[in-house]
Amino acid sequence: MPTMMKALRKMSSGPGLQLESVAVPEAGPTDALIRVRAASICGTDLHIYGWDRWSQSRIKPPLTLGHEFCGYVERVGEEVRGIAPGDFVSAEMHVNCGYCHQCRIGQPHICQNLEIIGIDRDGAFAEFVRIPARNVWKIDPGIPEHYAAILDPLGNAVHAVLAGEIAGHTVAVTGCGPIGLMAIAVARACGCSTLFATEVNPLRAALAKRMGADEVINPVEADAVARVRAATSGAGVDVLLEMSGNPTAIQQGFKMLRAGGRASLLGIPSQPVNLDLVEDVIFKGATVQGIYGRKMFETWVQMTALLKSGRLDLEPLFRERYILDRFQDAFTLLEGGQASKVLFYPNGGVDMVQK
Amino acid sequence: MPTMMKALRKMSSGPGLQLESVAVPEAGPTDALIRVRAASICGTDLHIYGWDRWSQSRIKPPLTLGHEFCGYVERVGEEVRGIAPGDFVSAEMHVNCGYCHQCRIGQPHICQNLEIIGIDRDGAFAEFVRIPARNVWKIDPGIPEHYAAILDPLGNAVHAVLAGEIAGHTVAVTGCGPIGLMAIAVARACGCSTLFATEVNPLRAALAKRMGADEVINPVEADAVARVRAATSGAGVDVLLEMSGNPTAIQQGFKMLRAGGRASLLGIPSQPVNLDLVEDVIFKGATVQGIYGRKMFETWVQMTALLKSGRLDLEPLFRERYILDRFQDAFTLLEGGQASKVLFYPNGGVDMVQK
Amino acid sequence: MPTMMKALRKMSSGPGLQLESVAVPEAGPTDALIRVRAASICGTDLHIYGWDRWSQSRIKPPLTLGHEFCGYVERVGEEVRGIAPGDFVSAEMHVNCGYCHQCRIGQPHICQNLEIIGIDRDGAFAEFVRIPARNVWKIDPGIPEHYAAILDPLGNAVHAVLAGEIAGHTVAVTGCGPIGLMAIAVARACGCSTLFATEVNPLRAALAKRMGADEVINPVEADAVARVRAATSGAGVDVLLEMSGNPTAIQQGFKMLRAGGRASLLGIPSQPVNLDLVEDVIFKGATVQGIYGRKMFETWVQMTALLKSGRLDLEPLFRERYILDRFQDAFTLLEGGQASKVLFYPNGGVDMVQK
Amino acid sequence: MPTMMKALRKMSSGPGLQLESVAVPEAGPTDALIRVRAASICGTDLHIYGWDRWSQSRIKPPLTLGHEFCGYVERVGEEVRGIAPGDFVSAEMHVNCGYCHQCRIGQPHICQNLEIIGIDRDGAFAEFVRIPARNVWKIDPGIPEHYAAILDPLGNAVHAVLAGEIAGHTVAVTGCGPIGLMAIAVARACGCSTLFATEVNPLRAALAKRMGADEVINPVEADAVARVRAATSGAGVDVLLEMSGNPTAIQQGFKMLRAGGRASLLGIPSQPVNLDLVEDVIFKGATVQGIYGRKMFETWVQMTALLKSGRLDLEPLFRERYILDRFQDAFTLLEGGQASKVLFYPNGGVDMVQK
Repeated sequence: MPTMMKALRKMSSGPGLQLESVAVPEAGPTDALIRVRAASICGTDLHIYGWDRWSQSRIKPPLTLGHEFCGYVERVGEEVRGIAPGDFVSAEMHVNCGYCHQCRIGQPHICQNLEIIGIDRDGAFAEFVRIPARNVWKIDPGIPEHYAAILDPLGNAVHAVLAGEIAGHTVAVTGCGPIGLMAIAVARACGCSTLFATEVNPLRAALAKRMGADEVINPVEADAVARVRAATSGAGVDVLLEMSGNPTAIQQGFKMLRAGGRASLLGIPSQPVNLDLVEDVIFKGATVQGIYGRKMFETWVQMTALLKSGRLDLEPLFRERYILDRFQDAFTLLEGGQASKVLFYPNGGVDMVQK
Repeated sequence: MPTMMKALRKMSSGPGLQLESVAVPEAGPTDALIRVRAASICGTDLHIYGWDRWSQSRIKPPLTLGHEFCGYVERVGEEVRGIAPGDFVSAEMHVNCGYCHQCRIGQPHICQNLEIIGIDRDGAFAEFVRIPARNVWKIDPGIPEHYAAILDPLGNAVHAVLAGEIAGHTVAVTGCGPIGLMAIAVARACGCSTLFATEVNPLRAALAKRMGADEVINPVEADAVARVRAATSGAGVDVLLEMSGNPTAIQQGFKMLRAGGRASLLGIPSQPVNLDLVEDVIFKGATVQGIYGRKMFETWVQMTALLKSGRLDLEPLFRERYILDRFQDAFTLLEGGQASKVLFYPNGGVDMVQK
Repeated sequence: MPTMMKALRKMSSGPGLQLESVAVPEAGPTDALIRVRAASICGTDLHIYGWDRWSQSRIKPPLTLGHEFCGYVERVGEEVRGIAPGDFVSAEMHVNCGYCHQCRIGQPHICQNLEIIGIDRDGAFAEFVRIPARNVWKIDPGIPEHYAAILDPLGNAVHAVLAGEIAGHTVAVTGCGPIGLMAIAVARACGCSTLFATEVNPLRAALAKRMGADEVINPVEADAVARVRAATSGAGVDVLLEMSGNPTAIQQGFKMLRAGGRASLLGIPSQPVNLDLVEDVIFKGATVQGIYGRKMFETWVQMTALLKSGRLDLEPLFRERYILDRFQDAFTLLEGGQASKVLFYPNGGVDMVQK
Repeated sequence: MPTMMKALRKMSSGPGLQLESVAVPEAGPTDALIRVRAASICGTDLHIYGWDRWSQSRIKPPLTLGHEFCGYVERVGEEVRGIAPGDFVSAEMHVNCGYCHQCRIGQPHICQNLEIIGIDRDGAFAEFVRIPARNVWKIDPGIPEHYAAILDPLGNAVHAVLAGEIAGHTVAVTGCGPIGLMAIAVARACGCSTLFATEVNPLRAALAKRMGADEVINPVEADAVARVRAATSGAGVDVLLEMSGNPTAIQQGFKMLRAGGRASLLGIPSQPVNLDLVEDVIFKGATVQGIYGRKMFETWVQMTALLKSGRLDLEPLFRERYILDRFQDAFTLLEGGQASKVLFYPNGGVDMVQK
């Protein structure tokens, strides 16, 4: 067992990251120490890398990034039950307090004192990561290793899709980034009816088709609202899954929604959004849901079941695999606007070739 | 049975109303003709009276106003079952088509082809009104006559309060017009926890207290958001009942809502509202509901039960009673901004004195 | 348009049926007359054919049987909107009153005064059948003709499966008659997790596998409860779909259910069942649902969407096709205990060969 | 701080209890030690006292009884946050494991490895009791001390009543023991419609009236089913709260339930119950729920709110107060079949007079 390890870190306020050598974390009595097998880059990591306004207010350097990963349990604290060294695991990176009102009434995913590993504490872009044992999730043997590295965003998608009825329901997905694309596959696997997607990026639009969208509309080139309404006898869709965070897309999404429909909002707009509450929510009797994180741990159970069933083909999402040393190439690749998951293998041991 | 009757009508595009003599309506085979006992003036009637922008786009004169009322069945069409002449009734004034998607799946209150009696067809500010028989609701004998005249707005309040869990939940009611005030009484009767109300008008604020609010805050004089959060250990309320339609109140209401809470929106803002979707909906995992009309007819069943139980004291809401001839006085009284229900008795027969 | 037609009828109290020539029904102002294309034999028809105790108490001869069918609209009454001659349709054969408590609160499928076409009124084993127009359901062009003939039992299965959460949930289906088999396919199409089925008949067991069961257990040969619990880490399944009506299977099904699970009961036991309420319901915090008919018309919408998506392969269920004259062969075939759908084509026009 | 204390214990297999002097419990790092103020005798304690069949299989002497109580925090372990010495508290006595499937998906109240303090570990009929800190519940200052001693059974009642919609719904409560009586008061405070109760014991029947039942029926003297159906226009009640555990009462309760209604079962029958599943559950489309314990901790939040509102008058339930030395008198009193709560004050300090 080494005492020092490589970690990809934000060392000071400002753009960029640095590969550092740091001490391997100590695991407390209720913690697990995980040897990272694979970790995936999230859009949030790109924001921190670029040091946008949100990052400036939230991130306190120095910090090791990384909150999507899988690995092997290396060591557990003395009070830990249910997991043991050698287990192949991922983890819920939202750490709840256990004491606030929401924690007490069964809504820990919206805990008032939530901390996120890789955002507020050192994360998984490193050879080892420390995780509270109750946040560790054992991976079913039927799930491929690289899928296990992206359960965090897949959980976002599953939480959004299953936040209401989906079987036999028409769906619009606005925005086909990685989570939007996963949501398409999940909705399809759960028996949704006709699924429309909107996306301006041609690469993402093509992926949306491969993930199972019946129709992908470029909202710059076509009137997406008119198209969806025409295809639903004027009624609109039963379910809106808003995955873009783009104010115009949000507004269009609401216009696509039928009266009595459900809008699940996951995409993060960078500013307040002007909503026509009367026509789009009140007169429609619509239900609007904020989707944050994943339910702990219902979503993990559902996600495991969907993956085991073999109905979720996520292969189209994967691109390059890198060792941490080549992080610059990885971030540059993603800054091009791809809806792809790029994986780090901090401990090496795979062919770092393109998937 | 007379052939002509008095009716209070909008005769042309522009402000004001006129008392006219018109033919008593014919009842078709599936209709009921009702002799109006009492009818109540809604805020919508004030808008039509004043001829605001919404009225200009929606109302097609000539039209008899009035959609809150009670009366006695005078005659029923040959295919009508379940009601008979002499029955004391009110009616659901939202007439659904029965054929659209929402009607077919049990959501007739948000029918795609909804018509409202008193808005799109001749209403109840008249001696008689024609109603499709399936929209007629027989009044339980335990319900006072003047209460029976305001079941329409009471139904709005009941629908909003019972659109989610309420027993043991903390509540904020933003806006204490008649429906807001009724919502306070309904939430209280259904076992809510601490109930906060916001209102600028001192008369309405005083009524809010009488209806059962634990604390009424004037948001111009105090920081309502800070006050509600402080009183809920920083968490915010479980349930927001938005009854004002005021953009600032809506924004404040969302800031009062706890993570995981429910916001039921009923007040009608006259323009789009700028919402901080990230902080107020998405990160909160909040549920936002548009509340329109009343559920047909679950809400009517619930409302009847609450009234029969004697737990809803609506007396503070009632003001003057008028014959139709004095409509000018009635509208002038209400334009003063009172949260009060003023009743017409088109067929006379009561002391037209102040309650 | 003929005035007389062939109809397969129960003419008197006792076993058997007769092929009769009767008058084509008159369609009233709110009715549709349908020219039957294909009709399917239900287990209930077998009971009436054999004249069991239930039939003796419910059926009033003379009566034309048949409540699973599709056909073409021949004629509509003057008050009918939304359907027209030539439309390809099926129908909800449960006719609700529209006036009772359940009808008023959006639960018409459990109307207090329900009548069933083919049980209480003349049904679809005839060249023509009369249906109240609001019960008629237009068939989406993407749905195969023979599937359209079995929407009634498919709707039972869809109603049972979607009466609670199913995606990502483990399932046990006890009893693999036609509706049980359909439920397997529906649960699979809606993203269920591991699905166990129990069945003693080897033919049905084989079909269960083809419909998508992960494991089919013969409860006579193996300890089905022990097997399901072992395969679910001792917890039991999330969802029980009881399709057998067999008291022992019902008891076993409850023992397979995990604490907090859902049991949806559709199979009809012929006598009261002894239930261990303490261990199987109360201490488990289980939810038990009675499943009757189909939701009008949410289930029809969901069913249409699932069929259009192409995810439901029902072909294994179909067997012979007959003209009405050969009804004796059809009933004899089914009395052998097959989980198959046998179709009548009262107006001929297909090859009456084995599928 | 003493090292020894009095405790009321089952010392060996067989009827009776003994007052013993035992060591004050040690509190581990995540525990709290509570100085008991008042503790209440549950029906389960009577069973253990009398040593019935259930007790023989479950209880492992020696054991200190008592699972309904309130007290003051004396000491907390080093890892405990959120409570401190001096806090006035009660506790959820169902201790969940935190690792099983149900614990992980937010259903800890039906944990697979549940242990109950006072049943499986030493309880609160003693001067001190040790409780895991996360099970401790701080008492709102607005709640009377003696009410704080019976939050455990009150929580059962609240969980049962609020397991589905209650406002505006008709209710039947079968069985008016303490929890049934509390359920009457809770349903009333939450806006229920007409509430029927059944009870044979005249004392309990009288209490049912005082707690808010509209009508109390002695099912031995009157046809309770016929009476309830007649009073609900033949439909039956919306909600059955089964609190008796008596097989006949359970069967009658189901016959009182309307189609589409909810039956929440809490009473524990001592043997399997013969149910007419077809007529009472399946054809009715009924929902049946097992009610066990209390939701952790939603129920505690709701209960606190209801008590604070002042709407729950539980005074009629209270009888004598005793010191532990007089336990024989207390148990003898209750064996007479009263629906009353008798309190122990192990540390003395009140007038031990009859309430």
